[in-house]
Amino acid sequence: MRQLRGGRRAQPKVVALGGGMGLAASLAALRRITGDLTAVVTVADDGGSSGRLRAELGVLPPGDLRKALAALCGDDDWGRTWSEVVQHRFKSEGALHDHAVGNLLIVALWEQLGDHVRALDLVGKLLGAHGRVLPMSAVPLELEAVVRGHEPARPEELSRIRGQVAVALTPGEVREVVLVPGAPPAVPEAVEAVLDADWVVLGPGSWFSSVIPHLLVPDLLDALTRTKARRVLSLNLAPQPGETDGFSPQRHVEVLVQHAPKLAFDVVLADQAAVPDQESLSRAAERLGARVQLAPVAAAGDLPDGAVPPRHDPELLAAAYDRIFRMHGRIGPWR
Amino acid sequence: MRQLRGGRRAQPKVVALGGGMGLAASLAALRRITGDLTAVVTVADDGGSSGRLRAELGVLPPGDLRKALAALCGDDDWGRTWSEVVQHRFKSEGALHDHAVGNLLIVALWEQLGDHVRALDLVGKLLGAHGRVLPMSAVPLELEAVVRGHEPARPEELSRIRGQVAVALTPGEVREVVLVPGAPPAVPEAVEAVLDADWVVLGPGSWFSSVIPHLLVPDLLDALTRTKARRVLSLNLAPQPGETDGFSPQRHVEVLVQHAPKLAFDVVLADQAAVPDQESLSRAAERLGARVQLAPVAAAGDLPDGAVPPRHDPELLAAAYDRIFRMHGRIGPWR
Repeated sequence: MRQLRGGRRAQPKVVALGGGMGLAASLAALRRITGDLTAVVTVADDGGSSGRLRAELGVLPPGDLRKALAALCGDDDWGRTWSEVVQHRFKSEGALHDHAVGNLLIVALWEQLGDHVRALDLVGKLLGAHGRVLPMSAVPLELEAVVRGHEPARPEELSRIRGQVAVALTPGEVREVVLVPGAPPAVPEAVEAVLDADWVVLGPGSWFSSVIPHLLVPDLLDALTRTKARRVLSLNLAPQPGETDGFSPQRHVEVLVQHAPKLAFDVVLADQAAVPDQESLSRAAERLGARVQLAPVAAAGDLPDGAVPPRHDPELLAAAYDRIFRMHGRIGPWR
Repeated sequence: MRQLRGGRRAQPKVVALGGGMGLAASLAALRRITGDLTAVVTVADDGGSSGRLRAELGVLPPGDLRKALAALCGDDDWGRTWSEVVQHRFKSEGALHDHAVGNLLIVALWEQLGDHVRALDLVGKLLGAHGRVLPMSAVPLELEAVVRGHEPARPEELSRIRGQVAVALTPGEVREVVLVPGAPPAVPEAVEAVLDADWVVLGPGSWFSSVIPHLLVPDLLDALTRTKARRVLSLNLAPQPGETDGFSPQRHVEVLVQHAPKLAFDVVLADQAAVPDQESLSRAAERLGARVQLAPVAAAGDLPDGAVPPRHDPELLAAAYDRIFRMHGRIGPWR
């Protein structure tokens, strides 16, 4: 963990909300600038190993939780080895193919201990994790989207699409998402972490399936609204084919406002190379009460219009968060 | 770990060889009387979760290794919790049903690290194991038996039966077992442990599928023959339906002699209630160069002729081993 400039401040309490690779990127950055880090993770995934575990065992999808834990794993040989093991996927012609070992381990702990949070804390301890990983809800959730033009033959028609994978793959335009069941309970530890934070960071990540779902859990939205923490919205480097195809940065902000009109932010962080129209993004950010902070955060070689989806560089993203925390932080020592 | 009587001797180095529940019982006893304990485990199992993993992934059967590790797990909350997790089995209508989580974890470590011994040492470290667990060979093995009367209609006919499960279930009389491939290489660490031991304990366990296979690995048999360690043969409490149906204690000794005629033992340990004819057992033991030690080692309520297979009581078995180690041990401090 890097020493904060100034040296005398305690570490900021940071809560990062999201899911998938976007959250893992955010955590890989944030662990460099604070030792007091909590991840709050979506549980609406229904694809791959997680989807099969949900279907077979009726459990929360563990995959995004596993990725977050791996992103926080210890720097020593023990932490790295176990991190590689939990990320390991079986390859076969049979029933275990593509199951991630950490998913199986997390699910076994849930079944054995009967306590989602204690089980994840135990995996975190195994990995020597630099932070805590919590599910946003202890209820397995489905994502349902209102999509325009899901059937390409009827481009104006609105239809309801059920399931994270289906939403991610729709050729239509996602207009709105809801969770099923609606208004799920939040995990109390996640609510407490948000209320107790100095900073909350939402995103980057799959906008409709990993970022916005946090705002659809009433207790979590309430905590995000009430917390005295400062709030950062961390934008993606590029639109995501399917989910946010053709979305500008400002459109990302606008759909977020649409799903949580009363939630304010302090800062919207975006990579300058991914923002063709700074003026429009600033106007959208104003609707959140936020200022735009531009910073180079994409990994070298990744261009926003490249064939490979661009990735965040952990060092650059850490530098951007650090700058934001210092510029927009409270005066004096952190709580 | 219990203090040895006398107090001034160092701990004996003990190697326990076997497989399945029998080895786990032996380890649960031996951990009480020494802190220097190595388990050497058969790898010819082809049933259940292990059998499916062999078939799907081409790996060593992990189940008996897992049971041995769980039997050695730490006494603290961490060790007990992880032991329960590795022993946890999924229950479902689907593909994961009955897979033991520890089996999946061990296999993942093998695939990830490419090193059987290092992987098992890492699981041992996770569990805070009081000892080391090694496979007898790094090659997945099949058991093949010569069985008389496998087809009940032809009671005198000898046939060759392939596979541990098939051998365990045959209604015929097992006459001899071999490993396929024959003469497999031993794991070097297992050979070293045997050569370096003060005591080696073979059995209890499924006689043809967990105990005798160790004698069919040439380097391991050679080490057992050459070691200066004293040797205990720990008999079962009852014949095992299928594998050793109707076998007397002396018949167990005789088939062992038949498979390894040159291997001597110092002590044959048996429960007195399981030995109807002490004279015959003593004569059989003489062929091994061994004295018979009778001791009550069965768990209370388990009768040798009961409907439930009798189990060893860890405390009683520990007391019996401790007595043997003291009575038959070298004079003065252990090496």
